Amino acid sequence: MPTAHPMITVKTSQFADAFRTFLPLPAELDPPLEEALRHVLDNQGSLVRPRMVFQVARAYGMDETPARELAIALEYFHTASLVFDDLPCMDNALDRRGVPCVHFAFGEAGAILTALALINRAYALIWKAVAQAPHSVQPRAMDYIEQCLGVQGLLNGQSLDLHYATLPHTRETTEKIARGKTVSLIRLTLVLPALLGGASTREIQLLERIALYWGLSYQMVDDLKDVLGTVADSGKTVARDILLDHPNVASVMGVAGAVQRLTRFIQLGDKTLESLLHVRPEMSFLRNLRNALEEELARVTQNACTAAGARL
Amino acid sequence: MPTAHPMITVKTSQFADAFRTFLPLPAELDPPLEEALRHVLDNQGSLVRPRMVFQVARAYGMDETPARELAIALEYFHTASLVFDDLPCMDNALDRRGVPCVHFAFGEAGAILTALALINRAYALIWKAVAQAPHSVQPRAMDYIEQCLGVQGLLNGQSLDLHYATLPHTRETTEKIARGKTVSLIRLTLVLPALLGGASTREIQLLERIALYWGLSYQMVDDLKDVLGTVADSGKTVARDILLDHPNVASVMGVAGAVQRLTRFIQLGDKTLESLLHVRPEMSFLRNLRNALEEELARVTQNACTAAGARL
Repeated sequence: MPTAHPMITVKTSQFADAFRTFLPLPAELDPPLEEALRHVLDNQGSLVRPRMVFQVARAYGMDETPARELAIALEYFHTASLVFDDLPCMDNALDRRGVPCVHFAFGEAGAILTALALINRAYALIWKAVAQAPHSVQPRAMDYIEQCLGVQGLLNGQSLDLHYATLPHTRETTEKIARGKTVSLIRLTLVLPALLGGASTREIQLLERIALYWGLSYQMVDDLKDVLGTVADSGKTVARDILLDHPNVASVMGVAGAVQRLTRFIQLGDKTLESLLHVRPEMSFLRNLRNALEEELARVTQNACTAAGARL
Repeated sequence: MPTAHPMITVKTSQFADAFRTFLPLPAELDPPLEEALRHVLDNQGSLVRPRMVFQVARAYGMDETPARELAIALEYFHTASLVFDDLPCMDNALDRRGVPCVHFAFGEAGAILTALALINRAYALIWKAVAQAPHSVQPRAMDYIEQCLGVQGLLNGQSLDLHYATLPHTRETTEKIARGKTVSLIRLTLVLPALLGGASTREIQLLERIALYWGLSYQMVDDLKDVLGTVADSGKTVARDILLDHPNVASVMGVAGAVQRLTRFIQLGDKTLESLLHVRPEMSFLRNLRNALEEELARVTQNACTAAGARL
């Protein structure tokens, strides 16, 4: 069985440091904005995403420095999307990554400026990374970023999400929203570094399909967590989606239907991954991401069973 | 007396069309987001800024296509900054460019997504324009954009602006804010296209000084308008700055002091402009911008005198 290429083994601490330091705060920065930015830079997520970007980039031959810049840039975009998403006019969340949301601690304007600072820095880092890639792949990579983050991707998903109450509450709608909000960022994670590393058309097609299956799967696990989970387990208020009429595939299909569909997506992802590994064995570390997904699903359903048992 | 180079004469209509069409809206875009974006794309400002960017870019030898992309990109950034600035958590404005603000017509979330769509497209257009420039100037241009728009520029100015009530109400404070909010965008307008066109260090230094003098001057004219103007004339509610404790140089220095300082800046700008025209006569069209500034000042003070006369 193939193991991870030694070249692409990565330590979490290097990403934690990079996340904290790749957005330098100038001495003359307005103190309230500095505080809000430090709050975000010091309270990182799991950093699974930048590790994955880095590993894909390295598997496709990118140098360490641009690979790390790309990884942190995409994590800054992701973090900015969460800061906006948590605002009172969007999801109106209170906690994120175990601490109060930026808007709750530093006001809405502070949160918006913080998110924009992350975005501005992310584009600068992306550009540095892209500038190191062969000229032939640069225009396509920049188009891809625009497509995933803009009106064809993330922003459309976010807008649909906000108007969910006015849309048919179907699986199709929830998956359309997930394609915009979740799959777009997974596409950047898996496909963009491969594009920059000169992956073949066939590899890009396979990675696009993996991004779709896993993106939808991760959203489904999240939806199941919301319906089944506990505060301690998911780090957010329980069953908010139903309470607030937010899209949730488990609430439109039922838990059993959602688990079945998710299992099918994991199988389709496995098949596609094997085809990819056939041409690019260095990408075997992706199995860890796939396994993490399955473990997460097992934990969510196990917790729900335990909770149900306790109530009997 | 030198006249504008025929090559760099531009029609307003071409920028109006470009502003409307350079952000293509996909067929599957969520209708509420589409409506909000059309509202912004159809209600343009004076387009003085993109015309100026285009003229500077052409004077420094950039081709028409990247010059126009750069011009519209910077106008999209500027427009996005206004959409954010108008939000209830920032300036809480109701009207902009003669129509209701985006957040007022389409909600706060709609306004935020609209502004982010403009930003995403602006970076894509900027990248296209920069990619056409010689490789030797590209990294500096991208650093410059980051610096002007980020925590060292626009975002810091906006943050200081929001916390003005807690800061000393002095000329120094108002000018620090104006350097962040106003001068940063004028720097992008005048200096960035010159940088991309391979301007000499001396020319960049002169353009930086012109951007500073004119940026501060435009902000002062705006402040004077707020203190002296009428709704019909300025298109916004009168004396909002004093009412809302917003920075306004005319309210901290008095109208006479502000007019005197502004006149001095125009003189310093003239001297610097003549030095620039000595080495780069193609930039003589900048005189139009300088004259527009003086005319604007004359109109604002004249209106105030007329109004005072009418009250006697």
